[in-house]
Amino acid sequence: MSVRSRRACQMFFPLLFLCSSFCVSVSSLPLSPSSSGIALNSTLGHTLLISSSVVTTTTVMNHFDTQVTQSFCSVATSATILNALAANAASQGRAVAVPVDPVYSPYRYYTQRNILEDIPCVATVKTHNGAELDAQFIALHGATLDEWSQYLKCHADVVQKHHARSGGVGEFRAALERAYGAQPSGELVAVNFDRKGVEEFGGGHMSPLAAYHKDAESGDEHVLLLDVSRYKYPPVWLPVEELYDAMATLDSTSGLNRGFVVVSARAEGSDVAVGITTEASTTKATELKAQYACLEKKEAARWDGMLACLDGGGTAIMSSSQTSRSAAMSPTSAGVLGGFFGFVVGGALAYTYASLVGRRRVSRAFAALQYAGDVDVDIP
Amino acid sequence: MSVRSRRACQMFFPLLFLCSSFCVSVSSLPLSPSSSGIALNSTLGHTLLISSSVVTTTTVMNHFDTQVTQSFCSVATSATILNALAANAASQGRAVAVPVDPVYSPYRYYTQRNILEDIPCVATVKTHNGAELDAQFIALHGATLDEWSQYLKCHADVVQKHHARSGGVGEFRAALERAYGAQPSGELVAVNFDRKGVEEFGGGHMSPLAAYHKDAESGDEHVLLLDVSRYKYPPVWLPVEELYDAMATLDSTSGLNRGFVVVSARAEGSDVAVGITTEASTTKATELKAQYACLEKKEAARWDGMLACLDGGGTAIMSSSQTSRSAAMSPTSAGVLGGFFGFVVGGALAYTYASLVGRRRVSRAFAALQYAGDVDVDIP
Repeated sequence: MSVRSRRACQMFFPLLFLCSSFCVSVSSLPLSPSSSGIALNSTLGHTLLISSSVVTTTTVMNHFDTQVTQSFCSVATSATILNALAANAASQGRAVAVPVDPVYSPYRYYTQRNILEDIPCVATVKTHNGAELDAQFIALHGATLDEWSQYLKCHADVVQKHHARSGGVGEFRAALERAYGAQPSGELVAVNFDRKGVEEFGGGHMSPLAAYHKDAESGDEHVLLLDVSRYKYPPVWLPVEELYDAMATLDSTSGLNRGFVVVSARAEGSDVAVGITTEASTTKATELKAQYACLEKKEAARWDGMLACLDGGGTAIMSSSQTSRSAAMSPTSAGVLGGFFGFVVGGALAYTYASLVGRRRVSRAFAALQYAGDVDVDIP
Repeated sequence: MSVRSRRACQMFFPLLFLCSSFCVSVSSLPLSPSSSGIALNSTLGHTLLISSSVVTTTTVMNHFDTQVTQSFCSVATSATILNALAANAASQGRAVAVPVDPVYSPYRYYTQRNILEDIPCVATVKTHNGAELDAQFIALHGATLDEWSQYLKCHADVVQKHHARSGGVGEFRAALERAYGAQPSGELVAVNFDRKGVEEFGGGHMSPLAAYHKDAESGDEHVLLLDVSRYKYPPVWLPVEELYDAMATLDSTSGLNRGFVVVSARAEGSDVAVGITTEASTTKATELKAQYACLEKKEAARWDGMLACLDGGGTAIMSSSQTSRSAAMSPTSAGVLGGFFGFVVGGALAYTYASLVGRRRVSRAFAALQYAGDVDVDIP
């Protein structure tokens, strides 16, 4: 567990459970940011936003996503920045390739599922243990900065991957000024840091950044971190150097320090659609019909059954119902059918055996009769 | 389908498929807001935000959620405003009752699942067709303003439910000023409108509002609508009267006009936790162990299998595996076992029958013998 707890975005539950008195003490309020952090939903946090936000800031906030599992921080961060990059590009008339999630078909949108699933490039990511990178891998292991950077490259240009180190904060500052300064470059910055380094509860974590504020008088610098664990911490303004120091921490899985990535949209040919697909309308209409039929079935009363109906127009539940009438049947049907065949086969064999035995016994009896009184009769 | 297409948040696909030339024409960019709407991620949209946003605005944006299915707009809107209300209350030191979603346990957060699931109050909602309101109901039918307002009341105070009507825009304006004016009341406003009324593509829809802007010179009023179909439309500033008119449209399912709700946090006793649960640590540790064991199984390679592992510490997959070894067996095992029993039973019956038949035939033969030659023998 010691390795796991150091992994990016891994749950820090073991410690949590050892300190139940602490848990109780914080139970009446959500977790608060560090003493040096400023919650966005506070008067000061809002003031910083007003004085420093750019259009890019609202674009990232528009697509701010919650991680779907407690180890999916890198994927939720990716979904947030990839959708923001696509929206940015689209508002400038440029098209980027956004995949379709069956749930939102025919509209195109990055989700924490379609970023990883059925993307051949993602399966080629070199992982720390040699296993294939997919949703299950991330659910079990989270991701290192290198793994994250590699699968991000399947969808966008990773302009910079920086492992934080002593004295390297200038590069971080430069990236922030390019992305969130007065003349935004169109790039976005996302970080991999140790929560403990910013006085938060937990271990390795990833989240996108949305704004950069430098106080004209004091020179104090803050960066707006949109924490994708929205159930745990609010968006927070963190001192730039404090966050950088929290990145300059060892991820024992990779043997390298954490850090940040700078990502920009990968412009594609004009034939690539954003926002809505151009698939054949007839296919969609059929899918929709199947979806409604599926949603009316009793399996859809369960949460996962309902979601399955929306996954490819209900193919999952519909095909499993069809299957139960043909190939893979229910245990009850299989038992009854097996019993019937067993009954017939067993019965036929036993009847034949019993008849043969009976016939032999009659033969022996008549043989005895013939021996005793030489009576010649046909065996009936 | 005519009724369905008028329902709140229902998909408008049938029309979409009849107009494939239109679909192709918009395919290179995401859908744009109406001619009178101003996208938030534009220079003007950002300027309006800077000049009118309040802390409440950022709080709503912090919890802005995407509907998990194409008919879940009312639920995504509810999740957004309920989490924002809870965060607002918490920042003022007040506690509200936020449920736990097993995926985020031990943290408390409203999700589109736990708003509906296992909440006895939700099952008592009076629906238009008398069916029980749950996730399946919403997936099939969406929700009317009345149904939505009723299930919202299970989690918060619905201060106002307003069916829009000619001349009623003043009440809407008053609600906006209370919620998003200079002295925010802590209330939030969410709307149920017809997309066609704001020149959008679709039918009935729900979404939360996050800000209100009144131009000091021209008197022009705009309201910021955070569209929960984030895959379809960006957040947009809409003219207040245009949006109100789009609410003053008939929902044929309820026979009433659409409208808006004003919601505020329901303060609970101090024993109600927000942010993190105080459940026994031992239970959590056991759950976590089960979760890891579950995530390592081959079933977790599927997206739904992975999510099932996180649902109550993997109870779903773990128990289904255990079940397959005891009660509900596989079709193959059932077939083999059924066949064996059938073989034994069928065999025993057939043997008995064949023996009895054989014995009767021997009896008849000996009876014939006795008649023919009066030979007295024991039947063998």
